Amino acid sequence: MRIGVIGSGAVGCFYGARLARAGHEVHFLMRRDYEAVRDGGLTVHSRDGDFRLESVRCHARSEEIGPVDWVLCALKTTALDAAPGLIGPCVGRDTRILAMMNGLGAEQRLAESFEPWRVFGGLAFVCCNRGEPGHVHHLDYGRVAFGHLLDDRDEVGRIAAIFAEAGIEAQPLDSLKQARWEKLVWNIPFNSLSVSAGGISTRRILDDELLGAEARELMLETIEAGNACGCSISPDPLVDKMFANTETMGHYRTSMQIDFEEKRPLEVESILGEPVRQARAAGHGVPHIGAQYALVRFLDRINRQELTRYA
Amino acid sequence: MRIGVIGSGAVGCFYGARLARAGHEVHFLMRRDYEAVRDGGLTVHSRDGDFRLESVRCHARSEEIGPVDWVLCALKTTALDAAPGLIGPCVGRDTRILAMMNGLGAEQRLAESFEPWRVFGGLAFVCCNRGEPGHVHHLDYGRVAFGHLLDDRDEVGRIAAIFAEAGIEAQPLDSLKQARWEKLVWNIPFNSLSVSAGGISTRRILDDELLGAEARELMLETIEAGNACGCSISPDPLVDKMFANTETMGHYRTSMQIDFEEKRPLEVESILGEPVRQARAAGHGVPHIGAQYALVRFLDRINRQELTRYA
Repeated sequence: MRIGVIGSGAVGCFYGARLARAGHEVHFLMRRDYEAVRDGGLTVHSRDGDFRLESVRCHARSEEIGPVDWVLCALKTTALDAAPGLIGPCVGRDTRILAMMNGLGAEQRLAESFEPWRVFGGLAFVCCNRGEPGHVHHLDYGRVAFGHLLDDRDEVGRIAAIFAEAGIEAQPLDSLKQARWEKLVWNIPFNSLSVSAGGISTRRILDDELLGAEARELMLETIEAGNACGCSISPDPLVDKMFANTETMGHYRTSMQIDFEEKRPLEVESILGEPVRQARAAGHGVPHIGAQYALVRFLDRINRQELTRYA
Repeated sequence: MRIGVIGSGAVGCFYGARLARAGHEVHFLMRRDYEAVRDGGLTVHSRDGDFRLESVRCHARSEEIGPVDWVLCALKTTALDAAPGLIGPCVGRDTRILAMMNGLGAEQRLAESFEPWRVFGGLAFVCCNRGEPGHVHHLDYGRVAFGHLLDDRDEVGRIAAIFAEAGIEAQPLDSLKQARWEKLVWNIPFNSLSVSAGGISTRRILDDELLGAEARELMLETIEAGNACGCSISPDPLVDKMFANTETMGHYRTSMQIDFEEKRPLEVESILGEPVRQARAAGHGVPHIGAQYALVRFLDRINRQELTRYA
């Protein structure tokens, strides 16, 4: 397969490299790491065994890539406005687009620019980050759940098979929407509280009685909101399982907390704003999530000095 | 009257000095400003005219003051645990205690150590702060509303008269509880959001669409919680009036935000914790206030380095 990775952060590089190692012709659109990868290749330090791609097809512009079979879009959702322009040159007659992005709404946004049958969602359950230019660290997990915007099971099977054949745990989904909301059940409480409670680890949230209770309220409210939007998510045993799992993670820094520390834009709209809007559009109140949305959106602006605190 | 001011911050010094100027024998329990006031007197820089008390009865220990007619307790509510020990030596057979403190619960806490008939609440609507030692700045307003823990109107009239005769606008209250909840309708949203949204002015809260909406939700929830606790507060026109008033205040820093900046303990229990507990005890859910309570309580601990962010 000819695959174009648009957005070569940790997730894009890790899965792109795995697909390249499995024999696919993978092209990477790169910005920060472009020269380092062009000159020195891409090194994956992985729990599953380190490996290195000596010669990487990396590009500074999508036009150099041209039409592909699959676009693997792993941009941050903060770059969604730019996504169609970056993806467009890679889209030919049969091209399909896999959005490996956080939160809610990425596939719908892409479907405003590309036909819905082209659009897939990939939910990566993976812990990885970028090291020095040209290096990616894969720390834990790795499973990807795949859905299709129109929930076409055959289509979902095609992309799941490509990943599975590359040795990646691949789970086909009956409902992309349901899977996205289920992932939010963890992402909403821990990402938002890690920022709004002062830039803290998941351990600190669990250790504080009131913050832990607020995390639980946020989880339950996310489940109810998802169900109001047509999902069928049971809080039992999901909520307890997520807490138990988080207990094992130590002083884990959420992606939002890492972005906050690095003064990068937060994925506030896809993780908080879009769920709030969809819940309210379904006539469902979300006081806990709404409060986090207001706070985190504002803290992001203060953090990036779009605003001063006063005067 | 023999009056003992326990807690000689801006509020205690300002009203104590006004009562002393009116001819009362006012004793001040002082800590930070003790030596400066003993040696150089107390200067009030006031919108209503500056004045200076040359010779001030200031003390480092309550035992030096002894029994008084009125204790004016203007401690921060974060010092409530210490209050009975500081007030006790000033209490004689007929001593009455006026709690000029923020939020909810101060009078009830004092009534655990002193008979309820002795306990009054004073709600100061005043903008004042301490300058260099021995100096107090009175910037605006000044009205005090007085209530009695047992809502005895005759008792309320006595303390209101003392203040009124000293030229202070004094308002007797039928219901102390109702007045305390009404004051929270402003204090809960603006104090908590000024801290949880990153340490910001009231102007920033009003200017942000989502924070402004959250402030309104907090106001409405405070009114409903107060009413669930037996008050009778109408949101109309109170909420709009409070917003309109806040519009005129510019980049106002709330008391909680000032304490936060100065790394002092926040009055989180009296302004947030106690209202949450009373509402829940009345079977009334407070998701917005509860979220602020969890966040602000935690931010206070991080701010004073009781905890690290992680590890």
